[in-house]
Amino acid sequence: MSRRDDILTASAQAIADVGVRGLRVSDVAARVGVATSLIYYHFTDRDTLVTAALDHVTRQALAFRRRPGAEPARTVERLLEQFTAEFVDDPEVVDHSRAWNELRASAVHEPALREAMAAASRAWTDDIAAAVREAQAAGNVAAGVDADGVALQVAVFMEGLDSRWLTGELTTAEAVHALRDVASRLLQTPGS
Amino acid sequence: MSRRDDILTASAQAIADVGVRGLRVSDVAARVGVATSLIYYHFTDRDTLVTAALDHVTRQALAFRRRPGAEPARTVERLLEQFTAEFVDDPEVVDHSRAWNELRASAVHEPALREAMAAASRAWTDDIAAAVREAQAAGNVAAGVDADGVALQVAVFMEGLDSRWLTGELTTAEAVHALRDVASRLLQTPGS
Repeated sequence: MSRRDDILTASAQAIADVGVRGLRVSDVAARVGVATSLIYYHFTDRDTLVTAALDHVTRQALAFRRRPGAEPARTVERLLEQFTAEFVDDPEVVDHSRAWNELRASAVHEPALREAMAAASRAWTDDIAAAVREAQAAGNVAAGVDADGVALQVAVFMEGLDSRWLTGELTTAEAVHALRDVASRLLQTPGS
Repeated sequence: MSRRDDILTASAQAIADVGVRGLRVSDVAARVGVATSLIYYHFTDRDTLVTAALDHVTRQALAFRRRPGAEPARTVERLLEQFTAEFVDDPEVVDHSRAWNELRASAVHEPALREAMAAASRAWTDDIAAAVREAQAAGNVAAGVDADGVALQVAVFMEGLDSRWLTGELTTAEAVHALRDVASRLLQTPGS
């Protein structure tokens, strides 16, 4: 990993731990073990660092979903497995969700973050839509299903679940159960 | 309105404006035009004030849904109208959503807020479930639909929509369209 990547990983971790509003550039520097000035050398200012951290989190998530050996999600069951893989009791997955959840909420109050958040959300939603289309091409999801519409709805539902899961209001099993139920219904043609 | 209510209204407004993490007790005092000490007299500390503000937001929302003249939601169409009433271009409704969205995200990082958030969410979800049961009793929603399960799913979806609506990633019309589509499917028996 490059020094730049180290800084972004530490920033994402700091956001997961203390939130965007709690993030201090000096804390990120301490986590990486570098001078604060080096962070400003790479990222100019705090907003740029936060936006780059969001980008980093998004790229990591995409890379994880497209990792070598990851089968394409050509069946409804594989799609459901792909969606529910984001709700597991794995510290790395939990930290990813905490960072994303914080970045999303902060975008409401921090206009500097909005454009990057919208782009990251679109990349994620497009990824889901592409998986739905593969399942349609394989004949496992009806052609009449609106892949983009379902992708948006599933992503929105997952984000809603996230914050209840991260506060412990829903257990992992409850979150997975709700997501499987909702996503499998959305993958059917309306009224079918 | 009592002085206590004035303070809670100003706190909810401050949370909508600057977020929980940006909330300063002295700013709330300035908004109400009282001394900061009066706020501590009523609420002891910042955490207690934030929790009371969440309570206030929740009670206002319940009162709004149960306002005199509000018809019971006995049909699917009335249920959908009730859900989508939270996505309108009305500054008061937007502020309510901003405050709720912030409080929910903050609960991940502020354990002091978690119990109150869980209770507020349950009150809201129970309210939706009661409305679904009324529609079931009136024969407009199938008896086989799990009212509590659907209520949780609809509430989670609405929260997910909220943050995309509040950042402008989704227009009001898009949010309403997605919510109507998802909620009307969830109000059907699975596989029907």
